[in-house]
Amino acid sequence: MTFSIAAAAKAAKKAARGYSSLGSQAKNALLTEIAEQLIEQKEQILIANQKDLDAAQENQIDASMQDRLRLNEARLKAIRDAVLEIVQQPDPVGEISHVQQRPSGIRVGKMRIPLGVIAMIYESRPNVTIDAAALCLKAGNGVILRGGKEAIHSNLALAKCIQVALEKHQLDPNVVVVVPNTDRNVMNELMTLNDSIDLIIPRGGEGLIRFVTENSRIPVIQHFKGVCHLYIDKQADLQKGLSILENGKTQRTSVCNSLETLLVHQSVAETFLPMAAAMFNNKGVKVHACNNSIRYFHEAEAATEDDWHAEYLALEIAVRVVDDFDHAVEHIGLYGSGHTEVIVTQDYSAANEFIRVVDSAVVMANASSRFSDGGELGLGAEIGISTSKLHAYGPMGATSLTTEKFVVYGDGETRG
Amino acid sequence: MTFSIAAAAKAAKKAARGYSSLGSQAKNALLTEIAEQLIEQKEQILIANQKDLDAAQENQIDASMQDRLRLNEARLKAIRDAVLEIVQQPDPVGEISHVQQRPSGIRVGKMRIPLGVIAMIYESRPNVTIDAAALCLKAGNGVILRGGKEAIHSNLALAKCIQVALEKHQLDPNVVVVVPNTDRNVMNELMTLNDSIDLIIPRGGEGLIRFVTENSRIPVIQHFKGVCHLYIDKQADLQKGLSILENGKTQRTSVCNSLETLLVHQSVAETFLPMAAAMFNNKGVKVHACNNSIRYFHEAEAATEDDWHAEYLALEIAVRVVDDFDHAVEHIGLYGSGHTEVIVTQDYSAANEFIRVVDSAVVMANASSRFSDGGELGLGAEIGISTSKLHAYGPMGATSLTTEKFVVYGDGETRG
Repeated sequence: MTFSIAAAAKAAKKAARGYSSLGSQAKNALLTEIAEQLIEQKEQILIANQKDLDAAQENQIDASMQDRLRLNEARLKAIRDAVLEIVQQPDPVGEISHVQQRPSGIRVGKMRIPLGVIAMIYESRPNVTIDAAALCLKAGNGVILRGGKEAIHSNLALAKCIQVALEKHQLDPNVVVVVPNTDRNVMNELMTLNDSIDLIIPRGGEGLIRFVTENSRIPVIQHFKGVCHLYIDKQADLQKGLSILENGKTQRTSVCNSLETLLVHQSVAETFLPMAAAMFNNKGVKVHACNNSIRYFHEAEAATEDDWHAEYLALEIAVRVVDDFDHAVEHIGLYGSGHTEVIVTQDYSAANEFIRVVDSAVVMANASSRFSDGGELGLGAEIGISTSKLHAYGPMGATSLTTEKFVVYGDGETRG
Repeated sequence: MTFSIAAAAKAAKKAARGYSSLGSQAKNALLTEIAEQLIEQKEQILIANQKDLDAAQENQIDASMQDRLRLNEARLKAIRDAVLEIVQQPDPVGEISHVQQRPSGIRVGKMRIPLGVIAMIYESRPNVTIDAAALCLKAGNGVILRGGKEAIHSNLALAKCIQVALEKHQLDPNVVVVVPNTDRNVMNELMTLNDSIDLIIPRGGEGLIRFVTENSRIPVIQHFKGVCHLYIDKQADLQKGLSILENGKTQRTSVCNSLETLLVHQSVAETFLPMAAAMFNNKGVKVHACNNSIRYFHEAEAATEDDWHAEYLALEIAVRVVDDFDHAVEHIGLYGSGHTEVIVTQDYSAANEFIRVVDSAVVMANASSRFSDGGELGLGAEIGISTSKLHAYGPMGATSLTTEKFVVYGDGETRG
């Protein structure tokens, strides 16, 4: 029997319609069952994962990717715990807000409802299969999961946990579809199914996201890259600036909320840059410096235009001295990726102005860019980060997987 | 000099970046100037409009379209008044909400910001040129306006009012682009400019909307059709039901929030359908009735599957007797277009359940579907109605032309 993505998506849409009105308790019971199945079925999951690991070794896939692929008992427990955390989160669905009485007499409000069916397209990490399914189900949605070919056995074994949980709770199993193969044609067809699928969230490299954006008829959440800036203002508390710089650049380098560019107001450059240079030296951070800052560093390279655009994801940073506040904001507007930007300043007006005018998903005063994720911002688990503005901008939690409809309470009113 | 949509969109993006942080007063002053220019330049506008009308007559364009195209002094004043109303509306931009203190010490909130650049693609009504520009500008956005070829002279004359106002207020004129020709290639290129344009709102027939959806790389707001349902429940107040039916079907037929299908609970069919039949007879409404209701009507036709899908936009209605509440909801789920649905009932639980489970943009209890527009729902002027769920669902006012970014107020916090 061949798999038809069109039929699966249509069935998911139908199942999602029923699932969407399920109450919070029933949804949480389902998620708890999924969490339990992860432990119950751990042997089968680890056997399937070993198949993927063997294939990865055979295909000489690089070590870091093999590591992302690997499951073990501790990682399975971490995946289970993430699901149990989602159970604890509030249910975004059903909230009614902005209720007002209109001159006609009707009362109007907005009610939060599920989006419908969400398709995830992702690469090697098998945990996404469970994380994404759990968040979509929490928000009352159907979900279609299309993982990478490197993780296909792991993903199918994890899918089994979800299917068993759905069956145990007598819910329509079609509400979660794990695409059973990684045929490119299936993905291409998926992107045309705008009658059944409401949103596509690709998670992976820029190539994948661009491919989906350019070929999809379904709205796509885009997250291209995180070129995050730290701007040390004239009135900065330089000690705060230094610890925010150190934390942003060195605490974890491979993540999109790490710092890539340091901008320093010219009037504090002479004091701050030697402090920064000592810390970079100490932590082994490679520097790409502008003409006005290069003399403060031991072994800096001259920064090129490419450096202002670079997402190093490594112990590497671009440094530029700026004339003033406006120059910093202009630089960010030109080279930023819409992810996260930080000002360090004690100047009340400068802090508020930066927050007001900088056009990125997360704009901060006097805090580390590393706080830019769903958990730290208070959203709970995160399904992705949007750096485009439609529907959601920035880290996306369960609420971003919902929308609002208008609800009207009348008493026989008609329009004159 | 040939017009380049790519260059215009790029310039609009740059101009919009500056315009986005303009305060409410400055934006309102600009809008007021546009309103004044409409009266100041009325002669040139009416001369240009006459050119379009002459061409329309020459090309034997149908009378209703010619009427939509026609401007006169009264209509110009109405367009001006609509702009002045937008001036009076609150500015959605800048609002900070959901501020919370996180365990790390940072305070996190969401701030409402403009979307960026919005492209409107529309057909013959020239008033859209001003309405859409005013709403986009109110919300801090740049706008690209591509009207139909029938209205090109009118649109360019109206555009002049906007350009003069922008110049008088020393604002970058590129923030509003009126595409100076109606070349299909220009529109096709526009739909690929996802680096400069954030959202496309097509307003017109289903063909236009489908074409844009299938070809755009930019997110599209879709409004296919309004197949609105009225369900008369077992516990309905039948007098309320009758006046809501009459208002919904007959007050104005050519609009998307008029009723197209009447569903009646079997236990009240015998009482309610003769009341409905008398009103339909009186108002000249043609009926397409199911097997169980046809006997109540004088000259009804038997309803076919097509009737359940029909958007008549005329004095015509489909009528079906349903077994119960669930059957009504199922019918709406199957045949509804996601626009507006109404239940008439005195049963508290049924009213709330209908509002909860029906998956349309506007769901009402005991009120006329004709209230389903931006003005009546309290949004002020409306730029369109979305029947797809991403970003906006239902009537869209100025707030729907914005998004939210995260703002973080820290005091030197770093991540552990």
